[in-house]
Amino acid sequence: MRSEIAEQPAALRATLDALLPRIPEVTSLAGQTRHLLFIARGTSDNAAIYGRYLIESHAGRMAALAAPSIATTYRRRIDLDGVLAVAVSQSGRTEEIVETLDWARDCGAKTVAITNGGEQSPLAQAADLALCTVAGEEKAVPATKTYTTQLAAMAVLALGLGADVHKDDLRKAPDAVQKLIEDPGDIDALVEGLADKPGVVVSGRGLAFSTALELALKLKEACYLHAMGLSYADLLHGPIAVVDADTPAILVAAGEGPTLPGTIALAERVTGAGAAAYGVGGGHALASASTASLNGPDLPEWVAPLGLIVPGQLLTEALARRLGYDPDAPRGLNKVTQTDE
Amino acid sequence: MRSEIAEQPAALRATLDALLPRIPEVTSLAGQTRHLLFIARGTSDNAAIYGRYLIESHAGRMAALAAPSIATTYRRRIDLDGVLAVAVSQSGRTEEIVETLDWARDCGAKTVAITNGGEQSPLAQAADLALCTVAGEEKAVPATKTYTTQLAAMAVLALGLGADVHKDDLRKAPDAVQKLIEDPGDIDALVEGLADKPGVVVSGRGLAFSTALELALKLKEACYLHAMGLSYADLLHGPIAVVDADTPAILVAAGEGPTLPGTIALAERVTGAGAAAYGVGGGHALASASTASLNGPDLPEWVAPLGLIVPGQLLTEALARRLGYDPDAPRGLNKVTQTDE
Repeated sequence: MRSEIAEQPAALRATLDALLPRIPEVTSLAGQTRHLLFIARGTSDNAAIYGRYLIESHAGRMAALAAPSIATTYRRRIDLDGVLAVAVSQSGRTEEIVETLDWARDCGAKTVAITNGGEQSPLAQAADLALCTVAGEEKAVPATKTYTTQLAAMAVLALGLGADVHKDDLRKAPDAVQKLIEDPGDIDALVEGLADKPGVVVSGRGLAFSTALELALKLKEACYLHAMGLSYADLLHGPIAVVDADTPAILVAAGEGPTLPGTIALAERVTGAGAAAYGVGGGHALASASTASLNGPDLPEWVAPLGLIVPGQLLTEALARRLGYDPDAPRGLNKVTQTDE
Repeated sequence: MRSEIAEQPAALRATLDALLPRIPEVTSLAGQTRHLLFIARGTSDNAAIYGRYLIESHAGRMAALAAPSIATTYRRRIDLDGVLAVAVSQSGRTEEIVETLDWARDCGAKTVAITNGGEQSPLAQAADLALCTVAGEEKAVPATKTYTTQLAAMAVLALGLGADVHKDDLRKAPDAVQKLIEDPGDIDALVEGLADKPGVVVSGRGLAFSTALELALKLKEACYLHAMGLSYADLLHGPIAVVDADTPAILVAAGEGPTLPGTIALAERVTGAGAAAYGVGGGHALASASTASLNGPDLPEWVAPLGLIVPGQLLTEALARRLGYDPDAPRGLNKVTQTDE
């Protein structure tokens, strides 16, 4: 996992080199559609959540996440005429995802695959258009470089849909990630703060919500921590009750953007209640309001999630080792998950 | 909370009496739309998830959950022409939800409100059509009767959209709920099994996923338990790693339907790994595969969620008291949550 985290700048560069020239193909296919429907599970689902917020907030299109059980368990057709279905799978071989993309096409959708499995993978073969990430082989079970390259593919998708952002920002991501690998912030403080805790709340809003969910998933699968990923808003509707001296909060935000003030206010509320708040990103203001913090990328909000997860990956790896676990091979998990056996 | 749980059969009867005659109004409004978009937070969000699965699996329409931050934080217009936006709020006074429904209408959507706040509530006033539940005043902070009556309103919505189900099934729900209140199953075994545990995974699939999320939310807000609500499929993509001798799983399923076999297999996998699996519903087969279990309603799968949550509400109330907490007034929470202050 450690070496794969370090490979992310190169993996991002290779993926952007491969996918940025394909923006016109996305534009052409998407021109026949209005809404988006993402199909994914696990880490790929968190990449889809980034895509969903990015496309709604910057490309003005409705974007939703599919419930694959409608296709694979209920086997019910729904009207998907005018929908662009985007299936995301690292391996491109998870049968549930391939089957759900087939179902979407049968229901009238145009189809895109985002996968690290290559053009010959079943998912790429099933789609009208395949955006293949170039992360190289990933051996550790917790996904790192396949996740950040999926985010890059989502950004390319958004550009193809006419998002009101600058393509050049995306080219800055590999260097920003490199900088975070070299200087992620106070990992030791967070490792010590979390090492004797049974659970943690991980929260972010808007574009950073995807990062909160992905960090919570990493901490669950590699550290067996009861990590609850919640949007900042949902946290206030009930689950804030669990945050106490034994349950710290990790709060994630880009260094700019409309969700930052609320995240800072939440850090103040958490520490004011006697619990620890650990900031990830959010610049000096979030760091000042937090008990300890990790650095965020020097990137505009729309592309910040490509870097925001990186200190969290390093935290996960360090915490797993501190707890005596092997971060590369968590118990009970295989690299390719088949949901239905 | 205990007395409000007991009021649910009467609240459901009153709500069905009020809303079933309004099916033609739903049909008329929905005829101008194709897709659905739910707008909700907290418990209401879990009711919306039931609505989403019900409408996709039985009415053949795409249904998604809105990200309110697109409206209230990013303030971005998206194309919602041909969309039926359905906002759900117990009080009808949560500003974020009212503002997001206003935004949806401005973006071209037709609008429905589902609320217990009455016809004069801001949410009902903002909608083209208001479906007002008749739960009466709810005093305890953890929602119970306002939640199950929201589910009844979702079922009415689905009937208005032409769902391929029998309306008579819905009329059976109040009696089925009464029966569960009188005989919820082995609450004591689950209270003792959870009392010394820091966390629990709550899982269900398809229509029962909403029940799993709602039970996890109840356990978080009233028992301060690290309760992680996950779909059966997402659980297998990583979080299954956290289930161990200290982290039991609660598995929810209707007594029939296509998600039951997978839920039983999951209970066997959990107990086989040395952890406790507690069944809720799922008939004799799930009970047999579980360490201990709660009863489910004698209802068809599509309407089972109206009853499936009830033994979980009783469990939450009993566990909170066992742990020395006041279930009616959890720390840090108010009855009407304003997300943005």
